[in-house]
Amino acid sequence: MTLPLAGIKVVDLTRILSGPFCTMLLGDMGADVVKIEPPGVGDPIRGQGTIVNGISTYFASFNRNKRSITLDLRTESGKATLSSLIERADVLVENFRPGVLDEMGLTDKRLSELNPRLVTASINGYGSTGPYAQRPAFDFIAQAMSGFMSLNGKVDDDPIRSGIPISDLVAGLYAAFGIVNALRVRDMTGEGQRVEAAMVDSLMSLFAWYASDHLATGEPAKRSGNDHPITAPYGMFTAADGDIAVAPSTEAVLNRFLEQLGMEGLRNDPRFSTNVLRIKNRDALNQLINEQISTDTQANWVKNLNEAGVPCGVVQNLPEALSDPQTLHREMVISVDHPGHGSIRTLGFPVKLSKTPCVVRHPAPEKGAHLSDIVSEWDVACAGDARTGVPEANVR
Amino acid sequence: MTLPLAGIKVVDLTRILSGPFCTMLLGDMGADVVKIEPPGVGDPIRGQGTIVNGISTYFASFNRNKRSITLDLRTESGKATLSSLIERADVLVENFRPGVLDEMGLTDKRLSELNPRLVTASINGYGSTGPYAQRPAFDFIAQAMSGFMSLNGKVDDDPIRSGIPISDLVAGLYAAFGIVNALRVRDMTGEGQRVEAAMVDSLMSLFAWYASDHLATGEPAKRSGNDHPITAPYGMFTAADGDIAVAPSTEAVLNRFLEQLGMEGLRNDPRFSTNVLRIKNRDALNQLINEQISTDTQANWVKNLNEAGVPCGVVQNLPEALSDPQTLHREMVISVDHPGHGSIRTLGFPVKLSKTPCVVRHPAPEKGAHLSDIVSEWDVACAGDARTGVPEANVR
Repeated sequence: MTLPLAGIKVVDLTRILSGPFCTMLLGDMGADVVKIEPPGVGDPIRGQGTIVNGISTYFASFNRNKRSITLDLRTESGKATLSSLIERADVLVENFRPGVLDEMGLTDKRLSELNPRLVTASINGYGSTGPYAQRPAFDFIAQAMSGFMSLNGKVDDDPIRSGIPISDLVAGLYAAFGIVNALRVRDMTGEGQRVEAAMVDSLMSLFAWYASDHLATGEPAKRSGNDHPITAPYGMFTAADGDIAVAPSTEAVLNRFLEQLGMEGLRNDPRFSTNVLRIKNRDALNQLINEQISTDTQANWVKNLNEAGVPCGVVQNLPEALSDPQTLHREMVISVDHPGHGSIRTLGFPVKLSKTPCVVRHPAPEKGAHLSDIVSEWDVACAGDARTGVPEANVR
Repeated sequence: MTLPLAGIKVVDLTRILSGPFCTMLLGDMGADVVKIEPPGVGDPIRGQGTIVNGISTYFASFNRNKRSITLDLRTESGKATLSSLIERADVLVENFRPGVLDEMGLTDKRLSELNPRLVTASINGYGSTGPYAQRPAFDFIAQAMSGFMSLNGKVDDDPIRSGIPISDLVAGLYAAFGIVNALRVRDMTGEGQRVEAAMVDSLMSLFAWYASDHLATGEPAKRSGNDHPITAPYGMFTAADGDIAVAPSTEAVLNRFLEQLGMEGLRNDPRFSTNVLRIKNRDALNQLINEQISTDTQANWVKNLNEAGVPCGVVQNLPEALSDPQTLHREMVISVDHPGHGSIRTLGFPVKLSKTPCVVRHPAPEKGAHLSDIVSEWDVACAGDARTGVPEANVR
């Protein structure tokens, strides 16, 4: 069967991470993504991360299912080629600072003149409106400003950023979701529109009970480390050969946990008879539980508790997680052949569709490799002799 | 204009967090989401978080734009009503443990018989296949098993979970993205399919350079706290009245940062002439920078550095972040009137569409309030006298 976004033409002006992640998600779903890179180094990520056989594996992992052309957008002919691409496109995606597209002459009005059916998506730090719109964006700063960091870390220690660039990636994913929705409107009405996902907004949307509790009570939210703020027992416990994470989320699951520990009697201990008391006496409770947990191994507890219906696991490091049998079964690590650079292992596809599964149709592209293909397939007006692969200066 | 998912009927069997977040995203985009709740307490979240005027603000914040009916799915007539709903639906979403839908008689084969156009989405912990498929899922455990925790925390301290339930929410968002894509295929081919998003897969997809570096080199990834593993200077610095976060991500931005500090000379110091040397001598570098940063206030640095194009912010706590002028401007906190419970403040819409913006069409529903409406609007065959609002035992 045809992939969901087959036939959807995407002009991809993004670079670095948030935007390329968004357009990769579109490419994975079948869109024809044309990555526009500046002459010279191209997307800066081409020079970052581990370089193997002449290719950045970081670049490779966020640019599959795209093709690349280079355009010098500071020149009139570069701009003309871009306009011609936009005329034929369904989607334009950019992650410049707000206003840069306008400075390039691509105002909403101009885009609409070029292509009234165009869906234009912007990924940025704080949004394109409001007092902070013009601030430069960076994942770390979005984590700090949004409140995310204030919720991440140990109780009595400093706020800490998430190791992974969470605001970049969640904003990219929201933008992809918005784009597919906007395409649906476009198919009904014939009209494109603007989609926007800001990194700070995106992180805020994930605050769950922290936000609802604070907005209802005015109380400040607090970091709780690996303890659950409103449930005990919960957290890390010490088995004979290392720690295990246990999350008995309901009274029923707690009973199963205590049964596996052989500690059903704990329910009759006046210190632990209710959740409120268990939170109050968490240290004493955890000590008793740890005495039992320490009598067996991580592997046995993980097996036995899960079989009893108690969520349990271990803190896997990256080598362990990415070689875990479940990870391999789910094809969350895949090998992609990059002609001239060998095979590169990258993460797989997080969304599984049964009839139209995502596939790697293209490895991450060589910079500017697909100009003549795109000019021909999209029927793009192009300055220079691009159709024969010998473009003039603005198209290299 | 019509919302993107107007006319899309969603049978929502989800409860707790990951699934309700997914179906809220669909509802925000205009889908007609019917939340099926068990008799009695309904979705357990109705009893959790801060309760104000008889409603859980946590429930309210994840169930806007839905309507609710109660069905006892252990009874034949409850199952019959569900089947009738499924026949008329476009989408079914569930976040049970894998296999539970089968146990309810709703195998892929049966669902396809009832409605070959149905898109069925499952959100779960490890996926519905593979050695861990039957393990019970929980956000904390997904954070541990996926490798996320191993990347979150200070360098020499323990791995730490993210405060927010990141795997629940990212999996819910991926599922929503998958559903809209599957609807697109359905519109082209007439065939529904299965969409799956697992919490562990979803987190792994966000590992960025950590994953690409490890998969290329075999080296374990390391936590780096608030320092950037491969860039210096970067991180938290101490102003006169508190810390600021600064992220000079490129050489050009670093030069602007040093200019603002009046420390251009640092580039000539042999200890700091390259990024590699600056990482090596990070402590000495940070000390020199802090001496300058400490001469002015947070507010001045944030203003001046951002104006100079250097990403900078402060760690805002939740009260600060949710009352920030930018947050209010972006309408990331909204008030929703819940008849009988008063007005409740919740988070706003993270995806901004210019012509078809998300709106609150329904506040979070009373349990079972919409049976007669749905029976009538969807033309559902329903046991009992549901059309008159007096259902029999299975429909309450």
